[in-house]
Formats: sequence, structure tokens, C-alpha cells
Amino acid sequence: MRKPYLLFLGEATHFSQAKTAFGLRDWAPESCVGQWSLPGCAVTLELAEMNPAQAAAKGAGSLLIGIAPVGGRVSESWIPSLFAGIEAGLDIVSGMHTSLADIPGLADAAKARGVRLVDVRRPPENLPTGTGRKRSGKRLLTVGTDCALGKKYTALALTKALRDRGVDADFRASGQTGILIAGSGIPMDAVVADFTAGAAECLSPDAAPAHWDIVEGQGSLFHPAYAGVTLGLVHGSQPDAMVLCHDPYRTHIIAAPDFPTPSLKVAIKQYEEAAQLTNPDARVVGISFNTSALSDAERSKLFADTESELGLPCFDPLKTSMTAVVDRMLA
Amino acid sequence: MRKPYLLFLGEATHFSQAKTAFGLRDWAPESCVGQWSLPGCAVTLELAEMNPAQAAAKGAGSLLIGIAPVGGRVSESWIPSLFAGIEAGLDIVSGMHTSLADIPGLADAAKARGVRLVDVRRPPENLPTGTGRKRSGKRLLTVGTDCALGKKYTALALTKALRDRGVDADFRASGQTGILIAGSGIPMDAVVADFTAGAAECLSPDAAPAHWDIVEGQGSLFHPAYAGVTLGLVHGSQPDAMVLCHDPYRTHIIAAPDFPTPSLKVAIKQYEEAAQLTNPDARVVGISFNTSALSDAERSKLFADTESELGLPCFDPLKTSMTAVVDRMLA
Repeated sequence: MRKPYLLFLGEATHFSQAKTAFGLRDWAPESCVGQWSLPGCAVTLELAEMNPAQAAAKGAGSLLIGIAPVGGRVSESWIPSLFAGIEAGLDIVSGMHTSLADIPGLADAAKARGVRLVDVRRPPENLPTGTGRKRSGKRLLTVGTDCALGKKYTALALTKALRDRGVDADFRASGQTGILIAGSGIPMDAVVADFTAGAAECLSPDAAPAHWDIVEGQGSLFHPAYAGVTLGLVHGSQPDAMVLCHDPYRTHIIAAPDFPTPSLKVAIKQYEEAAQLTNPDARVVGISFNTSALSDAERSKLFADTESELGLPCFDPLKTSMTAVVDRMLA
Repeated sequence: MRKPYLLFLGEATHFSQAKTAFGLRDWAPESCVGQWSLPGCAVTLELAEMNPAQAAAKGAGSLLIGIAPVGGRVSESWIPSLFAGIEAGLDIVSGMHTSLADIPGLADAAKARGVRLVDVRRPPENLPTGTGRKRSGKRLLTVGTDCALGKKYTALALTKALRDRGVDADFRASGQTGILIAGSGIPMDAVVADFTAGAAECLSPDAAPAHWDIVEGQGSLFHPAYAGVTLGLVHGSQPDAMVLCHDPYRTHIIAAPDFPTPSLKVAIKQYEEAAQLTNPDARVVGISFNTSALSDAERSKLFADTESELGLPCFDPLKTSMTAVVDRMLA
């Protein structure tokens, strides 16, 4: 990938639509030169706003599509911006399902300008089907009551916390943003359905007995569109431990208002039941809250109430200590 | 498709490996001219054994790959047989994941001989993601304690039983064999994982209030490789009713000896819990047993014991009446 990136925000109206851009900004800030929004965009990364020509002048290597819409397709309204990126001499980097080469004229324009089209949401060829064979080493999977509420951030923060404790740990990316941050991984939602669990088995291979793979979760068992991806990832990951991610302000599944988010108790029960098919010892070991909208006092009360109800350590990966959950993982 | 078919059995050693061939023989017998086995094959359809040249002389239009191996890839050992089919002037029809055109030289040979390569395991382009929106009409989905134990046969037999009762009903094929029998459908396991539930929503669209779609199930929630496909199909189908398919002699998941088949009670609970995400009224309404290895007396005892334990009507779609389960669906 040719860095640094100009992060394209399109017309995103909610930060959850710009997950990729926020992930890059927060976990690979040295790779981000600025942001570029279209009229109507209501989201900011608090990076300098610039167009592709200005970014190129500041040394940008690529225009990176920072938006992750439901369905993962390139919107018609972005296409002129992609041509503008090429015009300015930038590579185009995309985590969409749509292949950049399928956008009429884009490949020719890139070739003429001598820049590359990079699709990171391409799974490896010849993935196997799952076997359920028990692998060596330890694994933690982040799971959620919904999509887009912190599974990737939690996995990245847990990996860092484990390494800070001297534990041999790797972050395993299962989505396009994680792959852009980590430099490798498998885009689980782009795998052909028959091979989902097999792909998850490949993502966290046999390892030394004390090694931890921290696997980025996808989707939610409670999402009417994506639960199948989630279940394949749960089964193939064979997690010893899971951390359940939750947004206390999310009353229903994102983009599916008829589907309420489950209680933590119900979610823990269903994730443990699902994971125990391939690892009878699988347990939820902590709750990761997105508390960005809460005061310190509200957060403390939420954590105390939840810990007392469920007996599990609570944390916010961006705001609070992760010592208790790491202790529990290693115990 | 150019009919009738010569059904290719390869080196199958168990009838469950030749699901496609058996399905065609049983549900589209007028389309089958004979069978062709390789040395080592231990399965017979009890059709006339013939090679492609002999089949062509009897009017065959296509060589149909009748084997459905785990992973759905074309085996190296079959490739000479595919060339022999082309040589004899037959089209090649495949339900494998491997595209026939990806086999080196096959497309050129087909072109030179003026025959076609037909891949039925290609999902439609531009499938949507699932929405969970409630659709009109009624739906039944067949589900299983494992793969390959009667979900397709049960769905076909239920469709016939409903039509015999004057009910407006359609069989909805979700796998390659069902598609070959029905002439349409979506190969669910070949869909990109993100679109599994969305594909299932497309498979049984809005219909008249009294219309029944009988959806062919796939995989099993208890299979370490395929449960994700199953869950996406369960969520997208929004079944009002499910029939649970079971083989009383199957002690463990096929090709996964460390995974015991679940009890009927556990399976009913987990399928109902999963289906109720998108249809709170979803219920298992009957048990479909594969009793091919049982005497009449053993079958009667199994059904009586199960009906008394679970309070659900039991049947074998190939051997016994389906009146009770159809009554329950329509009640």
C-alpha cells in the first residue's frame, strides 16, 4: 500500500458509517494525511480537510475509501471522487465488496495515470471447509450485541494490553479496516458462505501453547443480515475466551429498527452456547462498553451495576483499564 | 439443460457422497438415461451402467456430475471422465464450487466439440443484504441434526403432499441438486457470506397469504463447517414452520467424528431460538426420519416413542403418510 492515505468520507452522516476512516485514524495515525468529505457529510475525523490534489501536494500516496456502508457497495455518488483521486496521481484503496476494476472506466484511467487500484476485501483462493479440529494455542474472539460498536477496537486494545504484560499475542483481522491496520487478515464477510468457518480456522492457526490470538469479531448473532458470518467465525475461531462488546445507548440493531438489541445476559448465553460446539470451554470473560456518550459517574455506575449482575469485569477500551479482563483471560 | 443425463458417480464409496445423482434419479427419473462409475465406486443407482459414448448413442444430452464431496471441488481423478464426456458430444453439467471453465483445457475441448459447460452453483449477481422485513405468505423450512439426511427429499415430498391437498405451494431449491430438479433456485452455500440471509429473503419472496413456500434446508446448526450457511438461511427464510430431519443411526456429524449429533430436543430448541429472531412464531411442526435401515416394527416404535416424548408428528417422506404433519402446518 502506498502511504500516507487521504481518507475519503463521502456523504457519511453518522460516525458508524465511517468505521474504516476512524479505525485508520485511531490505530495508524502516522498513515493518515487528511480527510476529504462530499457536501452533506456530517462526520469529521478532525484531520485537515483537503482534496486529492492538495493531498498529493502534501505527499499522499493513496485515496482510501473510509466509509463502510451496509452491503459494501461503491455508491454512484463517490465515483467522480475516485476519478479525481486518480487524476491527482493517487492509488485508490478500497475495502468494498464492489471490485474497483468493475467501475466502468476506472481501470483504464488508473492505467493511463500510472496508479493502482487496490481491493483489500478479496479473500485468499482455495480456502478449505472447516474441520472443527482442535488447534494449539489460546484464542480470544470479540463478539457483539450488534455491528459497529467496538469489536475491532476492543481486539486491538486487548492485543496491546497483553503485549504490555509480556504475553505473546497477535491481532487477527477479519474485516477490511482491521486488515488495513494490521497489514494482513481475511475479510470474513467476503468469503463464500460454505468456507466461512474454514477461513476462520486459517485465520488463527496452530500456535505455541501460551500464545494468544486476539480475533476481531464480525457482525452479531442478533443481526438479521449478518448472523451467519458471525456464527461461522465463532465456530472456526474456537475461542477459549470471548469479550462481549455493547453500546448502552443502542436500543435496536443498526439499520434494522424492528430488531431490539438483546440483553447482555441473553447475548452471553447465546454466544457461549454457539462457541461451545467447537470449544466446550468457551466462556465470555468480560464486557467491553462503548461509553463515549456517558459521564465518568454514569460509566462508573454502569460498570458497577453490570459487574454485580453478571460477575464479569467491564471496561471501555478507549477510556479505562483492562487489567481485570486480562487477569481473567490469563487465569 | 440438455437432457437426458448420464449420471457420473466417480469413485463414491457411500450413497451420501452421491446425493446429486440419487436426487435426480428419485425426483426427475425421466431425465436420467444411465449411470457411469469409476473403478472403486461402491455406490449404485440401479440404472444401466454405461460410458459417455454408449450414453450418447442412447440419446443422452449431458454428463452430469452426480457426486457432492465435502468442499464441492472437482477431483483430479474425474477430469479424464469430463474430457471423455465432451469427446462423446455431451454437455457437462456441474454443481461444484470449482467452475468447469477453470479446469485447464476443458473449455477449449468443449468449444472444439461444440458442447457446453454448465455450472449451476453460480448465485445471482447483486444479491442484497438481509433486511429482516416480514414478508407475506407462509413458509416452511426443512432443517437437520446434520447434513445429508433428507432435507431436500422432505421438502420435495411436503410440496407434493400440499399440492395433493389443493394447497398452493412451491418448492424453493437452495442447493445444486434441488436446482437441477426444480429448474430454479439459489445455491445458498456459494453466496458470499455477507449476503446469505439476503439471498434467502430473495428465494421466498412476498406471496399470497395462503401460499406456502417449502424451502430446502442446508447444512446444520450443529456442523462445525456449515452452521453459518444454515443460520443465514434460517434467518432469511423467516419460517412459520420447520420440519426437523434426522437419521436415527447417525451418531456423529458426517465427516466430523468428534461432533456428536444433538438430541432432537436440543435441536428443536436451538432451531426455534434461531428462527424466532426474524419470525417470533416459528415452530418445529414435525420430525422427518430417514428410516431406510429400520424394519416396519422398529419404525413404528421409533415414531410412537418420539411422538410421545416431543408431541410432534413423525414421518418418513419416502415410506409413510404425511397427513399429520400437513394437518399441523395448515392448522
